[in-house]
Amino acid sequence: MTDFNQYLKNAASEVSARLDTLMSRRASSVVTEAMKYSLGGTGKRIRPFITLEFSKLCGGSREAALDFGCAVEMIHTYSLIHDDLPCMDNDDLRRGKPSCHIAFGEDNALLAGDALLTEAFSVLANAQNVCDKNKVKAVGFLSELAGVDGMVGGQVLDLAFESGAPSLDEIYSMYSLKTCALIKASAVLGCLAFDGCNEKMIQAAGDYAYNLGMAFQIVDDILDVTGNQELLGKPVGSDDKNDKSTALKYLGLDGAKDAAVKLTNKAVEALNGFDGDSEALKELAFAMADRKF
Amino acid sequence: MTDFNQYLKNAASEVSARLDTLMSRRASSVVTEAMKYSLGGTGKRIRPFITLEFSKLCGGSREAALDFGCAVEMIHTYSLIHDDLPCMDNDDLRRGKPSCHIAFGEDNALLAGDALLTEAFSVLANAQNVCDKNKVKAVGFLSELAGVDGMVGGQVLDLAFESGAPSLDEIYSMYSLKTCALIKASAVLGCLAFDGCNEKMIQAAGDYAYNLGMAFQIVDDILDVTGNQELLGKPVGSDDKNDKSTALKYLGLDGAKDAAVKLTNKAVEALNGFDGDSEALKELAFAMADRKF
Repeated sequence: MTDFNQYLKNAASEVSARLDTLMSRRASSVVTEAMKYSLGGTGKRIRPFITLEFSKLCGGSREAALDFGCAVEMIHTYSLIHDDLPCMDNDDLRRGKPSCHIAFGEDNALLAGDALLTEAFSVLANAQNVCDKNKVKAVGFLSELAGVDGMVGGQVLDLAFESGAPSLDEIYSMYSLKTCALIKASAVLGCLAFDGCNEKMIQAAGDYAYNLGMAFQIVDDILDVTGNQELLGKPVGSDDKNDKSTALKYLGLDGAKDAAVKLTNKAVEALNGFDGDSEALKELAFAMADRKF
Repeated sequence: MTDFNQYLKNAASEVSARLDTLMSRRASSVVTEAMKYSLGGTGKRIRPFITLEFSKLCGGSREAALDFGCAVEMIHTYSLIHDDLPCMDNDDLRRGKPSCHIAFGEDNALLAGDALLTEAFSVLANAQNVCDKNKVKAVGFLSELAGVDGMVGGQVLDLAFESGAPSLDEIYSMYSLKTCALIKASAVLGCLAFDGCNEKMIQAAGDYAYNLGMAFQIVDDILDVTGNQELLGKPVGSDDKNDKSTALKYLGLDGAKDAAVKLTNKAVEALNGFDGDSEALKELAFAMADRKF
């Protein structure tokens, strides 16, 4: 691919435009403003990008994939809003701007998160150009992977590990739920944007997403040690300072780099399960592993 | 109906048992415990009861109605957990026992609410004995009525009215969203448990629910003036003490009583839109209007 970054940016613009359209259906209020504020900004829209690319790979509908991807982005955004709240991570900044609760107050931020989580399922139910059978499956996968045995479950483990010394396996479990689950939802929902989607596609998409997510999380650990504070937009060394349990503490820096490479290769291998052109998803995996922020 | 209260209790037991079964699928953690804690207890399960009765009235599947009703109860429960949080109403007690965040901490209560909201949609996607078309409609109605243009929107108005002097119409709008919307979801989802459900049924169920919900809310205002503190399980006179905007302040006590009667009658009239036996839903409307707590 000649210019992957530009390709990624174009998809991000398409997703942002669709999010604007979806939100424009809603009555104006301080909470819809808070929802739009947190949905906006300069995010790379990696999750919807994955949805769009898996749909393309399967031969699915772009309209359906766009809506499914927006639903995942809404779930991702709600989780950031609630994570930043004082009773959770108490973060005042998100992507270089004031967190939702700093900008709109805690009560409105709580409600904006609740509303985005709810809205995601409204978007799935009303998605364009996809059969009811696959909409139901999309609701099933997204709710499972975002819920108490998925992303929320990862948050629960993260909280529990604050007071304790989790094993490497336990840390991997936490990464798998906290980070991989929603990336898996992105990939699987991309397949489901194709009415004829089968089990083999869902399995391969899930394998790609799991390995990509794990690599992403381990690179996160690495960047916390080796990263550039300005590029990252957050202080380096915070995991160590906060005595946070990371895989890196078990693997060491070289071991972590090695693990990230292996996981990235596994993600790319999973794409062999598809006949179509998976170049962009390969590029994404390599870009995630190589990223500096 | 010879013994309506017993009939209501039997349905509540059936709902509670199904909620237990649905929750037993989930991995054990402090947050699943918090979810079960808040789902449990001695609630009357009015919302799932309405779902069961509308399904019965339409000739729908009891299994589907039970799952649809449990989904609505999960949404109702998440809303109570989040409402009780310190950044919202800061209530330490709920139905005579410590609120979720008092029992499990604010972080776990936040996540338990998020997880219940997500779980509701998982329950809809996996509901027994109902077609995909109606599952998609159920997801659409529930997300719409629980979201930022529904129940959450009611919360937003409620917060906004804390600093202001809303008109009677504005208060009615707030009641309609905050209370009626989820009751409407209960009623409509009951109709959708019948694969052959039509627009006329959905319309009539919505009319019943709107009027029942408005009557319920106005009786709430009345009980805050005339109620018995022990029966209510909360202090009377709190609306006045907290300078809360209620319809009663515009209508006066007699006007409010009159309004509650008229709304109840309208709810009962809406049942004429159905051919089947709507006795239990009639009894429910009268019981809601006559309730002492």
